[in-house]
Amino acid sequence: MQFYVDGYKPGDPFVADAHPSADSSGELPSEVDVLVVGCGPAGLLLAAGLANFPEIKTAIVEQGDGPLLVGQADGVASRTVEMLEALGLASRLMAEAYWVNEICFWAPDPADPSGIVRTGRVQDTNWEVSEFPHVTVNQARLLAHLCEHMERSSSRLRPSYGRQMVSLSVDPVSFPDHPVRVELAHVKELHDTGERSVVRAKYVVGCDGARSTVREAIGGELVGDRTDTSWGVMDVLGVTDFPDIRMKCVIRSANDGNILLIPREGGYLVRLYIELDALRDRGAGRDGTVTPETLVSVANRVMHPYHFEAKDVGWWSVYEIGQRLCAKFDDVCDSDMGSDRLPRVFIAGDACHTHSAKAGQGMNVALADGWNLAWKLAAVVEGRARPALLHTYSSERQAVAQELIDFDRRFARALSAPPKVSTSVHDDDGDATEFQDFFAKQLRYTAGTATRYAQSMITGSTEHEHLATGFPVGMRFHSAPVVRLADAQELQLGHVVRADGAWRLFAFADAAQPADPASRCRALCDYLASAPSSPLRLFTPAGAAPDAVLDVRAVWQQYYRDVALETLPPVLLPRKGRFGLIDYEKAFCAIQGEKDIFELRGIDREEGCMVVVRPDQYVAQVLPLDAYAELAEFFEGILVRPRTGAFTIA
Amino acid sequence: MQFYVDGYKPGDPFVADAHPSADSSGELPSEVDVLVVGCGPAGLLLAAGLANFPEIKTAIVEQGDGPLLVGQADGVASRTVEMLEALGLASRLMAEAYWVNEICFWAPDPADPSGIVRTGRVQDTNWEVSEFPHVTVNQARLLAHLCEHMERSSSRLRPSYGRQMVSLSVDPVSFPDHPVRVELAHVKELHDTGERSVVRAKYVVGCDGARSTVREAIGGELVGDRTDTSWGVMDVLGVTDFPDIRMKCVIRSANDGNILLIPREGGYLVRLYIELDALRDRGAGRDGTVTPETLVSVANRVMHPYHFEAKDVGWWSVYEIGQRLCAKFDDVCDSDMGSDRLPRVFIAGDACHTHSAKAGQGMNVALADGWNLAWKLAAVVEGRARPALLHTYSSERQAVAQELIDFDRRFARALSAPPKVSTSVHDDDGDATEFQDFFAKQLRYTAGTATRYAQSMITGSTEHEHLATGFPVGMRFHSAPVVRLADAQELQLGHVVRADGAWRLFAFADAAQPADPASRCRALCDYLASAPSSPLRLFTPAGAAPDAVLDVRAVWQQYYRDVALETLPPVLLPRKGRFGLIDYEKAFCAIQGEKDIFELRGIDREEGCMVVVRPDQYVAQVLPLDAYAELAEFFEGILVRPRTGAFTIA
Repeated sequence: MQFYVDGYKPGDPFVADAHPSADSSGELPSEVDVLVVGCGPAGLLLAAGLANFPEIKTAIVEQGDGPLLVGQADGVASRTVEMLEALGLASRLMAEAYWVNEICFWAPDPADPSGIVRTGRVQDTNWEVSEFPHVTVNQARLLAHLCEHMERSSSRLRPSYGRQMVSLSVDPVSFPDHPVRVELAHVKELHDTGERSVVRAKYVVGCDGARSTVREAIGGELVGDRTDTSWGVMDVLGVTDFPDIRMKCVIRSANDGNILLIPREGGYLVRLYIELDALRDRGAGRDGTVTPETLVSVANRVMHPYHFEAKDVGWWSVYEIGQRLCAKFDDVCDSDMGSDRLPRVFIAGDACHTHSAKAGQGMNVALADGWNLAWKLAAVVEGRARPALLHTYSSERQAVAQELIDFDRRFARALSAPPKVSTSVHDDDGDATEFQDFFAKQLRYTAGTATRYAQSMITGSTEHEHLATGFPVGMRFHSAPVVRLADAQELQLGHVVRADGAWRLFAFADAAQPADPASRCRALCDYLASAPSSPLRLFTPAGAAPDAVLDVRAVWQQYYRDVALETLPPVLLPRKGRFGLIDYEKAFCAIQGEKDIFELRGIDREEGCMVVVRPDQYVAQVLPLDAYAELAEFFEGILVRPRTGAFTIA
Repeated sequence: MQFYVDGYKPGDPFVADAHPSADSSGELPSEVDVLVVGCGPAGLLLAAGLANFPEIKTAIVEQGDGPLLVGQADGVASRTVEMLEALGLASRLMAEAYWVNEICFWAPDPADPSGIVRTGRVQDTNWEVSEFPHVTVNQARLLAHLCEHMERSSSRLRPSYGRQMVSLSVDPVSFPDHPVRVELAHVKELHDTGERSVVRAKYVVGCDGARSTVREAIGGELVGDRTDTSWGVMDVLGVTDFPDIRMKCVIRSANDGNILLIPREGGYLVRLYIELDALRDRGAGRDGTVTPETLVSVANRVMHPYHFEAKDVGWWSVYEIGQRLCAKFDDVCDSDMGSDRLPRVFIAGDACHTHSAKAGQGMNVALADGWNLAWKLAAVVEGRARPALLHTYSSERQAVAQELIDFDRRFARALSAPPKVSTSVHDDDGDATEFQDFFAKQLRYTAGTATRYAQSMITGSTEHEHLATGFPVGMRFHSAPVVRLADAQELQLGHVVRADGAWRLFAFADAAQPADPASRCRALCDYLASAPSSPLRLFTPAGAAPDAVLDVRAVWQQYYRDVALETLPPVLLPRKGRFGLIDYEKAFCAIQGEKDIFELRGIDREEGCMVVVRPDQYVAQVLPLDAYAELAEFFEGILVRPRTGAFTIA
């Protein structure tokens, strides 16, 4: 983390200087650039992402009187922790969360199928999938961290509570600058006070849940099915003789239903997802007869011969599984396609996809929706990117949601299928093993790291993927450790990708040293510094930080003590701020041995390569080190040349 | 970290529930248990430690109008980060600090001694010394974290600013409960307003710096010498062609003096310690002729042929090296010895020892003073420990300070000695190499992990040390990784030692499994649970948490999947809080392979052992697993039996 570039000053470096336009009153302006509707995961992630851009006027409204306190989702996938790291929130969340290390499987005891027995255990968190763990924590805590991030940001953004959207209209002809008009009802304890206010916005994002009024206003519809399976969910403190109470467990009884047990933060709390029996408990969710006591009694039935005595129920609910999806995540209809009509209204999270809770995907995918949209909106509103970029939100995220719906259908079916009773506990061909294998195979998917965006204006072709087999184009940049040359600091290379809107160009060097005139990595750096077609020169506004638009970093293969800092090309020692200080954090070396990033990520040692990474951490391009024309062309398709004149390397 | 034991509730788990007596006004009560004078490192660490005990009425006063903003110390030794971890502050500090990974040595260039050349580099941080790094950060930031900890604690403690001690007297006869009377001047911008107030306290701790009025009041004196060597120090943002500007460097020029260069937090800031030449700059510190410009000009002289252009000086000062020490750190005189006179007034930090700044020890030793005293005062004020415990503060910390003074004399001399000009840069027999070796050898000492307290009422004999050669009695418990049995979580065993005043008993198991009736570890657990002489039973008040006084933890040798949780003895599954919830965080297993704690810490696999750890993380005793009598006797010498009746294991 860098600070003091414009002068040394006291205070918490994690609190940004307030921008002159900063407004932490939570009062709603009548005109904004972006209006976010709803303070769930999608909305707050989006707002937290936009809060880093104080020139953009953002507002976020929520019909509730204040922040969420308990309940809702709790699983935070590794990929989500990676996103939170880019906002500086990962370590805070990890410090208070439960870490999911293993999954234990329980099934009917072959000796006495009326009871359960542990049939296996598999590793959940896998350090090859991500450098971050899979954790669980109350959704309210995660949202609180996002709110705190907004308050620490230069725009000091706060949600406006007690505001419910009642109508939305788009009129780009009469109001070309702020074409979206939103009418908000003032509500208190969710009751309409009768008062109304109007906000005009350039863009509106509906993060207002499954019954989204924003979705309705743009004619979107959740299409899909409901199933008959009801599940109860409770966050509970209890006393039990069940030995795996601090492990994530899938418990399948012979005839008494299933439980998904998720230990939670703080050492005592657990969440139980309890399947309500299709016959005995049918309709329980609808007729309102279920109580926490019912749920505890079903849990004891499933966990027999173990006992679970509930002492304190923190939150509980009953829901039915349904997989539903919206065909489009913005207001551009099929009939608009081919025209230059740009989206003005978006939907994210539960507003466009709903599914079961047990794979822990709802909150994570909602956060990823907000994450995908934040940098795109920021770039277009600030005039740095072509507005067509906004089309990629719906195309990328709708495909992800479709995959999720398909996955969830299979997953929910597998979980609810009655287990066959094995003849022995460790029957390798048995149903228990098959089920466990199915479960284990989903872990990379549920970790959130399997997402792969299709080729588009921001995601290149796979032509040169062989130069870095561990960085597939369209997937998130999978971090690996390196050593920073200037201070011998070992760190995760991926963690330099902050949520600051910049593109990254990672130059993985060929075998030559930086001082070597034959170094192709050096030649790339020189091209970037001085060629007329260099995207660094073309797209960085005069007066901006040299890495504000395209952040160039190089990784050398050599042991760091063998690379001389003073031989680095100037692009890797850029000058910054009012004093022209040198930024020493652009050059890295591979760690020698088994943590060598060139080995871990399959990078061609002879050729080296460029890896272009999007502001949301996804790999946009893998190119040969001398593919200057392709690089220039790629950015020409996305970025807009600044009006403020050409940038020069100091 | 554990929470929700008494019920699930919303909010930040790092903010403790306010105690009914909590007072965050910063207003000074007229009667307190402990009055801390001075908001430097010793005072704030002490206050932060006491803030965890809301039943103890603590106040802390500071003559300044508010918290320190810039300057003073910046080196945070690994051992200090270990202490901060016990307060929950380590990761916060590490996230913003510079990590010292290497030291680079520069000396006169043999080819042209008017210039300097790099002669070597050594690793600074060493993972075998501590699991934490050596970091640098503005002292003001570290103190801010301590203040925030106080505000989050159940007592919501805040400093009272603008209060300067003017007199102190002790009268145990007239005021047996609160024998110390302190008169405070109300000051504004360090000027006496003429107003006065009086505070009566059970104990007063002077953390009021080298010119301590508390020390004067108890007749203490700093004895030692001043030297003629003046050093300038500055925190500066600059532009330079010196390639090691982001490495800690010792730069020794042939005839132009020396520099100690310390990179700092944020990526740009550096601290320079600049020796002022004995002839050219002599007296500079006293006659006030030195300016930041002088310091920069001397720096350029030393760093020739490199240039350093200062852009922004955040803080600077000039000081002279002096090593001075107080003979006693409390108000018990030699003539009191042998009597039952107990200390009522203590001094800590610069009030009792001063020395040069360059080994980065001042703040670290001051923090360790406060750390040593906090748990002792808490235990005695709360009536849990015999008051004689308070004598150990002066005896333990005065010895440490004496060692430091001796070390600093050697260190300062070595640093100021003119380098001999070598005949080659890598002359293995040369002066440069000798100097580097000297420097490298001090790293364990300067890391703060070499402290070893002598045998006393709280530090046992070394008789059984061979059972765990990596846990020397009297040295800090050197953490190592383990797996928590209940949730397969890998963690540092030492990090379970929180700053909560509890003693720890780590039972490293013999080879038997917990279910094995022959297990000597199990037998120890059963003894602790039920024997009439068990210190757990004797000293834990009825109604207190079972681990409030003695926290028993066991580490088994086996792979964690081979140890069944349900076979643990009850002491390792204690019941807690209003619901009698089970605490699952008392049993651990060794990580198999090279991170095996039994191997790393030389623990006898056949015999196992008990390691008793003090509330301040120091090893008090290593005992055989069946040394019940010795264990009981040890605690009899320290703890007081509670009046509230015997404790029973649920």
